[in-house]
Amino acid sequence: MSYYAPEMRAIVAAAMASAALAVAAPSVHAQAKNLTLTAVPGIKVGHYTLAERPTGCTAILVEGGATAGVDVRGAAPASAETDVLKPVNLVQQVYAISLSGGSAFGLDSRTGVMRYLDEKNIGFKAATSINVPIVPAASLFDLNVGANPKIRPTADCGYRAAQAASTAPVAEGNVGAGTGATVGKSAGANRAMKGGIGSAALQMPDGLIVAALVAINPAGDIIDPASGKVVAGVRTADGKSLADARSLLTSGALRQPARIGENTTLAVVATNATLTKTQATKVAEMAHDGFARAIYPSHTMGDGDAIFSIATGAQPGSADVSRIGALAAQAVADAIVRAARQATGIPGYPAARDLK
Amino acid sequence: MSYYAPEMRAIVAAAMASAALAVAAPSVHAQAKNLTLTAVPGIKVGHYTLAERPTGCTAILVEGGATAGVDVRGAAPASAETDVLKPVNLVQQVYAISLSGGSAFGLDSRTGVMRYLDEKNIGFKAATSINVPIVPAASLFDLNVGANPKIRPTADCGYRAAQAASTAPVAEGNVGAGTGATVGKSAGANRAMKGGIGSAALQMPDGLIVAALVAINPAGDIIDPASGKVVAGVRTADGKSLADARSLLTSGALRQPARIGENTTLAVVATNATLTKTQATKVAEMAHDGFARAIYPSHTMGDGDAIFSIATGAQPGSADVSRIGALAAQAVADAIVRAARQATGIPGYPAARDLK
Repeated sequence: MSYYAPEMRAIVAAAMASAALAVAAPSVHAQAKNLTLTAVPGIKVGHYTLAERPTGCTAILVEGGATAGVDVRGAAPASAETDVLKPVNLVQQVYAISLSGGSAFGLDSRTGVMRYLDEKNIGFKAATSINVPIVPAASLFDLNVGANPKIRPTADCGYRAAQAASTAPVAEGNVGAGTGATVGKSAGANRAMKGGIGSAALQMPDGLIVAALVAINPAGDIIDPASGKVVAGVRTADGKSLADARSLLTSGALRQPARIGENTTLAVVATNATLTKTQATKVAEMAHDGFARAIYPSHTMGDGDAIFSIATGAQPGSADVSRIGALAAQAVADAIVRAARQATGIPGYPAARDLK
Repeated sequence: MSYYAPEMRAIVAAAMASAALAVAAPSVHAQAKNLTLTAVPGIKVGHYTLAERPTGCTAILVEGGATAGVDVRGAAPASAETDVLKPVNLVQQVYAISLSGGSAFGLDSRTGVMRYLDEKNIGFKAATSINVPIVPAASLFDLNVGANPKIRPTADCGYRAAQAASTAPVAEGNVGAGTGATVGKSAGANRAMKGGIGSAALQMPDGLIVAALVAINPAGDIIDPASGKVVAGVRTADGKSLADARSLLTSGALRQPARIGENTTLAVVATNATLTKTQATKVAEMAHDGFARAIYPSHTMGDGDAIFSIATGAQPGSADVSRIGALAAQAVADAIVRAARQATGIPGYPAARDLK
């Protein structure tokens, strides 16, 4: 633990104890078959969950390198290293994606993920041999959850998340970047519910895999697109049932559906297909259709919604981008619904499983 | 008719006769209360429908001028005057939007809409008094529908559409830019169905109106987001019922869900709110969530999906952009479902009303 400043040690020790519990508690999707982001070979996921306030970070490692893209569709983003992902720009591969709570402060967790990779000499080789780990990052706003907004994920938290990363099925619920995530804030925080981390994977008969990991923290409600039913969201005034943001909005009852500084949903979609940066960018764009289907309203002025896409290239040959993008949107929607169902309630924010 | 070249006269005369019939036939949404795009005061809509092949164009006039934005999310667009809509660029208002069939050729219809406005001296005043009507435009691909792909909407068709424009409830179904529109082409044209024009309007108790007009021609299926049910889309091999592109895609049966050169969905959303160009752009972006919810898959490499937004500013005061964008997405989804239900079958392409 030499990389911790002395004043951080007590906090970190407490956090580690909490993280161990937090990682143990959430359910793991599909014991028999991995139906989470790590179903894509080469991808490892690790969470770090703080004890002092509901927040944390999640490191998605792809140590072999992967082509990547991004699409930021929310109007209040906190992100880093998204410009490097533009198809015209030089670097072709990323080595990790860092997601966190803590709003713009939480981007610090990326520093720890970089450090972890740099210690292993994993990264882009500049000037022939100088290692620069490329780690795009995005953060969601959870500073309003819990008592002390000064507590947010640090570089050391990011390092811990990277250290914890494995190919095991991704832990879901109140962990990592989703620890302080909430949903259904269109009528104010006192009628909101708990969000969290969710993951889903689609495995095709021809070997194509498309998977998603999300941290759901939208202003909007979570909708199951298969039925049109609300899974979690704005509660009725008595707090006991779902109000349905769709009827609140279209009746005119809701005039400011997305308050600033409470939101943002983040996702990583991954595939074993071979994609160019340009194709990966289009896949990230199409993946946002999963947000639109499973979140209502989505992509508001108060959401900093961002989706990263990564393609490991293990499956050679030319890919049908429309197919991969459509499956990515499906995996994202599945992961969002799952995140709502796997979340557990915290004081002030009941979860889907707590209602009825 | 002096603006028609002599060789065009016979074609145009036939088309006008057809247009008169075609406009009479489609149902008009809500006789008592206008629940279409023209529910927004200041907006007129006119269709022109060709007789020689199922195609046509639709002119959306806003002769008093309106702030506008655009978001092109499909990968195969045909558009004009979208750069002028960038928030950084000079011109602040548009005077019409021109939608058409005919792929990139169909953009010619815009010329006729410009001519119509120029004759009335409506437009941006350059060098103090020189009139330049600003008419952004987008076209959908319908050249594969009917026998002769050389027949497409011309400038004269655009002029006719502008002449026909009125504040009456918008005619829906197989008219104007939606005349040759089809849906559910993920498994090939021989299992597709008929699309068309649809429109919807949301009127809020505080006087805010948000409305949409769409011409649905996607590769994907049309889904009713309220129930998750397919309204129109890929048919089963016997052509008698709906196959559901969602299960075809996620089972792996569908490996190229969007063939090139058959698609594109277009929309105009309008509001009586006051928006800046930047805000109008965000509203156009959020409106694409309506495509995602009601079209599956959406925004593919084979779709040139584009949404224009216009804000007349009749309702003064600062607008909540998240609210207007969320209502725009709802109006778009409503209009898409309605377009599928109002379409009528043509040879090879049955409509939703023809199945069961």
